[in-house]
Amino acid sequence: MPAPSQFISYVDTHVDSFIQRLGEAVAIPSISASGVHRKDVFKMGSWLQHQLNALGVQTKSIDLGRHVMDGQDLPLPPVILGKIGNDSKKKTVLIYGHYDVQPAEKSDGWDTEPFTLVVEKETGRLIGRGSTDDKGPILGWLNVLEAHQKLGLELPVNLCFCFEGMEESGSQGLDELIISEAAKGNDGWFVGVDCVCISDNYWLNTRTPCITYGLRGIAYFKLTVSGPTRDLHSGAFGRTVHEPMTDLILLMSKLVAPDGTILVPGVDDMVSAASAEERSIYDALDYDIKDIEEAAGARIALSSDKATVLMGRMRSPSLSLHNIEGGASAKTWGMQRVLFTSTGFHRLVPPQTPEKVEPLVISYLQSEFAKLNSKNKLNIEDARGGLPWVSDYKHWNYEAAIKATEAVYKVKPDLTREGGSIPVTLTFAESLGVNVLLLPMGRGDDGAHSTNEKLDKSNFIEGTKLLGTYLYEVDAISV
Amino acid sequence: MPAPSQFISYVDTHVDSFIQRLGEAVAIPSISASGVHRKDVFKMGSWLQHQLNALGVQTKSIDLGRHVMDGQDLPLPPVILGKIGNDSKKKTVLIYGHYDVQPAEKSDGWDTEPFTLVVEKETGRLIGRGSTDDKGPILGWLNVLEAHQKLGLELPVNLCFCFEGMEESGSQGLDELIISEAAKGNDGWFVGVDCVCISDNYWLNTRTPCITYGLRGIAYFKLTVSGPTRDLHSGAFGRTVHEPMTDLILLMSKLVAPDGTILVPGVDDMVSAASAEERSIYDALDYDIKDIEEAAGARIALSSDKATVLMGRMRSPSLSLHNIEGGASAKTWGMQRVLFTSTGFHRLVPPQTPEKVEPLVISYLQSEFAKLNSKNKLNIEDARGGLPWVSDYKHWNYEAAIKATEAVYKVKPDLTREGGSIPVTLTFAESLGVNVLLLPMGRGDDGAHSTNEKLDKSNFIEGTKLLGTYLYEVDAISV
Repeated sequence: MPAPSQFISYVDTHVDSFIQRLGEAVAIPSISASGVHRKDVFKMGSWLQHQLNALGVQTKSIDLGRHVMDGQDLPLPPVILGKIGNDSKKKTVLIYGHYDVQPAEKSDGWDTEPFTLVVEKETGRLIGRGSTDDKGPILGWLNVLEAHQKLGLELPVNLCFCFEGMEESGSQGLDELIISEAAKGNDGWFVGVDCVCISDNYWLNTRTPCITYGLRGIAYFKLTVSGPTRDLHSGAFGRTVHEPMTDLILLMSKLVAPDGTILVPGVDDMVSAASAEERSIYDALDYDIKDIEEAAGARIALSSDKATVLMGRMRSPSLSLHNIEGGASAKTWGMQRVLFTSTGFHRLVPPQTPEKVEPLVISYLQSEFAKLNSKNKLNIEDARGGLPWVSDYKHWNYEAAIKATEAVYKVKPDLTREGGSIPVTLTFAESLGVNVLLLPMGRGDDGAHSTNEKLDKSNFIEGTKLLGTYLYEVDAISV
Repeated sequence: MPAPSQFISYVDTHVDSFIQRLGEAVAIPSISASGVHRKDVFKMGSWLQHQLNALGVQTKSIDLGRHVMDGQDLPLPPVILGKIGNDSKKKTVLIYGHYDVQPAEKSDGWDTEPFTLVVEKETGRLIGRGSTDDKGPILGWLNVLEAHQKLGLELPVNLCFCFEGMEESGSQGLDELIISEAAKGNDGWFVGVDCVCISDNYWLNTRTPCITYGLRGIAYFKLTVSGPTRDLHSGAFGRTVHEPMTDLILLMSKLVAPDGTILVPGVDDMVSAASAEERSIYDALDYDIKDIEEAAGARIALSSDKATVLMGRMRSPSLSLHNIEGGASAKTWGMQRVLFTSTGFHRLVPPQTPEKVEPLVISYLQSEFAKLNSKNKLNIEDARGGLPWVSDYKHWNYEAAIKATEAVYKVKPDLTREGGSIPVTLTFAESLGVNVLLLPMGRGDDGAHSTNEKLDKSNFIEGTKLLGTYLYEVDAISV
């Protein structure tokens, strides 16, 4: 059952006011990773709660307590829970989103002020931090609510909302809240939830809508090599002592090959090779090497074979080396600092788990470090692991989303797995025992987390229609 | 001819006022690497000129023009030139020193305020930024001048001074000034100079005075690996594109082994192995593995053989890997930045020169990068090279310094080469065509460039006697 035509018309005739509301949301710099901006995260939470209330949603602001970040003791932003509709004959859909954003400063390389939504006339791009990650999708839901309220239309399902303000900073406290509400059963906030819908990822390309049924997990390591207890001058000490930086660089060089192969024995082997049949799924996706090269801004794809590149992202683990902290600066003529740290993520796919991968990585690093015969010390921390997640895409929740996409976009959506991680997905799936669907609004080149983040106007508007239509399709399916 | 006993007594009875003057100098935070402190470098130059004038030295402040540092257009601190004595029957000694200092903030890990000279009663340590590098030695010369002025003693030689304010930031403009003054011959400031004495390095250990006749040179490289034109998320792009960080780490790992061996073909080979006779020189130095381990604060010496460690510092090239800039932070969940840079020094020894070493390093890096089969781009910059310097330690200038050391310290000094680089040494030697001597005041554990920089009171006081006595020994030698 497609959405009523009044709903579609309402969305088409309210584009300007929808964009204006998105501009209000983008203007609040709700950067969760910065202590200075914590008050703005709270402001954004209040703004969202006020909007929900005005649209008839009953809300609760859940205090998650305090935490320490960069040595600062800070209050955690609240989780905004919401409910509208309580008809036991209807299905209940749980919507998740996050109202915090990544840091952004114009000097990072933005062409415009990151916290002023710019509507680019020629391209229809809505440019601003949070436009696509994740304020645009949250506002898509507000648009759906507004249309129904203003038109006097009954919602086809009961809706339950869970909006957090710490997603970009590790979602602190959220898992505990979900698990504890779930454990309360009929007395918990999530009572009666039949399925979950999360709109916090992106199309594979810039053309074809997609629906996502898998995410990679994470294993995260921090290596510290320490030796001298003070900064040393490279002139006075060069070639007399074991240098931490030399050891650390050598150790890091043993982890991953330039072609992406993970050199830690046993890690790649854990994932079976794709059968010819499975490869054909990737071959069928609407995707071209050019898509990834346009998104990266350079012709640097690891392969010219589309299925290989897609499987690298969707069904293979990856290992990225991140920063080194504590290096010497050129200004001080090559002092070497006491301590070097390096961070790296392993992105995991089933059947990998942090528990299975971590011991392999740690023992490999220790044995490679031993081979260096260094008198420096190696310390390895592992933290913030997250399981990979793969859902059943034949579930009625996916069926509804596929039908809604076909109704709005007139094409069959790509069914994809994502390279990134959204740990809360698994928490919802496991603690509520229901199907979780990822229904993205934005395109593959939106640049979430990057400079000049954008959401295309057509994605915002058609995406709003998609979210509304999805609710009607959920209602229509007999379970 | 030892120094007159009145001179020695004057120094012994004026310890407190000498330390007070050092305190005044340390209190001026003349950090040349910081635009904010540029006015303090000028203040320090004026303070020094005023002191010299009060002690009877005729001075000139030489404007070196302006430069751009970190995007700021700044005036270069002046070179203070000085002269006292014009007796054609006497030798003329040129003294070099620098009145700027390294950056320092208490939060770097100092136990005391870096720009407040602290006299540690129990140990006699004079703690403060610049105490040993290089305000202490400059003030040693002021002490010598004061003693002679107050005692009405004639100086045994003519003195010529050259004090700069940019040594810690590349000595900009100094070489040009020296070369142009030297080219003026009899009309130049350095007319009649017979030898040069520089007090800007350290004893090998904490016990035995040393005299230094060699310094390593420098070849400096900056590697940039670039690929994506925007930041990428490690989830979405991990194992789909060539990652700059992976390439850079692998490339850096090819440069130097954990034992200090330089892996660039031809670089280590350029230096012939030490003969048994040459080894015996290093064996004879008053030095123990414990000395370097105490200075580094950890038992991380590359060898347990003393001569091997000393030769690593004094007669071998070294390669240190420094920082990586532009890496992703853990907070942004593993974004990889557009650009990674790495800096490294090669310290050179004769017969190596930047011109000989640079092409070897560049072609090796290019060929190793090609082996990675990466689609990213490598750029290599080489800059700020400096030649190694070795002097004739049988020259009368060294003879005088050795006699003065024996007179003051009652021991034979160690004759050493240094691992660091003082490019002006070579400029003086080449443009004036005279012998250059390095006569250090401080000890091997003074921590120049590090936190808690100090000069021992006994080194300040006996060092003042040494500088004065050296002038008498220079005078006494018939050339």
